[in-house]
Amino acid sequence: MKLHTRLCDLLGVRYPICQAGMAWVARSKLAAAVSEAGGLGVIAAAHGTPQDLRDEIRRVRDRTDKPFGVDLLFATLRVGGKEAEQFTDDVKGWAEVALDERVPVLIAGLGNPGPYTAEARRLGIKVMALCGNVKQARDHAANGVDVVIAQGHEAGGHTGRIGGLVLIPAVADAVAPRPVVAAGGIADGRGLAAALALGAEGVWMGTRFIATPEAWGHENYKKKIVAIDEEGTVVSRAASGKPNRLIRNNFTRDWEQRQHEIQPFPIQLERVGRAAATLARERGDIENGSAACGQSAGLIHGVVPVREVIERIVSEAETVLARFGRRAT
Amino acid sequence: MKLHTRLCDLLGVRYPICQAGMAWVARSKLAAAVSEAGGLGVIAAAHGTPQDLRDEIRRVRDRTDKPFGVDLLFATLRVGGKEAEQFTDDVKGWAEVALDERVPVLIAGLGNPGPYTAEARRLGIKVMALCGNVKQARDHAANGVDVVIAQGHEAGGHTGRIGGLVLIPAVADAVAPRPVVAAGGIADGRGLAAALALGAEGVWMGTRFIATPEAWGHENYKKKIVAIDEEGTVVSRAASGKPNRLIRNNFTRDWEQRQHEIQPFPIQLERVGRAAATLARERGDIENGSAACGQSAGLIHGVVPVREVIERIVSEAETVLARFGRRAT
Repeated sequence: MKLHTRLCDLLGVRYPICQAGMAWVARSKLAAAVSEAGGLGVIAAAHGTPQDLRDEIRRVRDRTDKPFGVDLLFATLRVGGKEAEQFTDDVKGWAEVALDERVPVLIAGLGNPGPYTAEARRLGIKVMALCGNVKQARDHAANGVDVVIAQGHEAGGHTGRIGGLVLIPAVADAVAPRPVVAAGGIADGRGLAAALALGAEGVWMGTRFIATPEAWGHENYKKKIVAIDEEGTVVSRAASGKPNRLIRNNFTRDWEQRQHEIQPFPIQLERVGRAAATLARERGDIENGSAACGQSAGLIHGVVPVREVIERIVSEAETVLARFGRRAT
Repeated sequence: MKLHTRLCDLLGVRYPICQAGMAWVARSKLAAAVSEAGGLGVIAAAHGTPQDLRDEIRRVRDRTDKPFGVDLLFATLRVGGKEAEQFTDDVKGWAEVALDERVPVLIAGLGNPGPYTAEARRLGIKVMALCGNVKQARDHAANGVDVVIAQGHEAGGHTGRIGGLVLIPAVADAVAPRPVVAAGGIADGRGLAAALALGAEGVWMGTRFIATPEAWGHENYKKKIVAIDEEGTVVSRAASGKPNRLIRNNFTRDWEQRQHEIQPFPIQLERVGRAAATLARERGDIENGSAACGQSAGLIHGVVPVREVIERIVSEAETVLARFGRRAT
């Protein structure tokens, strides 16, 4: 078990490979396949109702008895004229389901889970939370999460400004000895080995897992990820109101001219993003809808089954480690 | 020699660590110190005349007999109404000096060195060229350079959109078996080890070497790099007309409101950038001048002599390799 890290023990997985909780794409079939192949499969809540989430959790459990996670976007709304913020009703509904179902792992894909962290941990649920800079990482550590996921600018979907080569070691330093998982720009075993070198205990991969038969989503979406190169994405607020890395297309170009019309999160998501995501990801109109995608598309050259994705990454990373091993002796 | 790579043999250096050819900062004192400590020291041409460059080359040779490099920005200007582009007179002057002086290594910090590559190689000069995406990497390989430097979005100064975690392996794949050097976001031994894991044969570090006593530049500049965190920089076209990562300050904020006034490279550099760079880097007005800096400032916590920088990085990287070695066995 050359790739065994503290993350494997903490989550009860064979390999330190987590599948990102991507809205629309990350459903029970994908999550169960990843967990069955030795990684941490994750289902996303963002595209459905709390009841949809409960159904999906049960479908994962029908397919595997291995650990899996649920990814929530902890969106808040200003309340009245005050500065106080409250979680949206969606968030409250999803969180209640996740806790009630005692999912093995709860992940904050966006925002700070606040009091839900302590409640989840009391129930034996591990809590992970994404950050895009060191300040957010420190907030998550102060809130008591088990694992901080440091997501670099390279990542698809909601993303920050700091590249992984800087963010990963900076977050590792800031929250040590709490384990850090590296996200953004990782699609192969070289990326996994690099993440470990930078001080992470594992990786969180999204785009690589979209280009699998098990991922939910139109074939055109998967083919487009294979077709574009590393320059084929752009960060836009058009889909949700927050910076979000998408495939560069008519949708992103159109909204580039209409920056001033973009509403804050999650209003833009409700008014524009949901329909645009459905158009691209479900109906396959990749040129006119919103299709989240990381820069790692430039490293993805085929639609490959989940088990093969994971086995290739493990084998490539072990090769890098062995090469280093020969050097170190 | 655990960190020995093909780059070491090619350039004749002990460690696979190159110092970036930063305008204003990278002068003979810094370059000679880096080369003496076992890396590749580099002097930048951009801030001076061809005669200044010749004087600097001779000063490096007075201080060390080890290999060093000269970094040129291969800027072009449109000629007449035609699409044809020509190198500027500055470029022609610098290149003539570098070839005439038979510098050990010639680096294209920006642009494509075109016919100078073949001329330099005929004279026994090694040629390296920076790229920010795979297309540029392929152009450099087709032009016959010895080494391609893949510079990620994290980097200070002129920079591209692609994060290093994606760019480095993508470029390594595109130009193999030509050696690749990783640039952007690297400031410690974890970064060097990660670069090697991603398929690079060495690193090209700028910001880390600014925060040394040997670097040319006002003390305020060096202190500011230590003071800011990973969020303290921004990409702006204000200094040169091309995307350029600078310390976020009054200069970058002011030009953010005046995007439409920015002239193309190198006109903006002549009209605005040179004076702004002098203001910050020479006179120490870091809040109102232009101060190039990478996101790796978030990993830099002190002004440290060059030899100590290099020894720390080597020792840290060897520790990572040894940890991997124990895993691999």
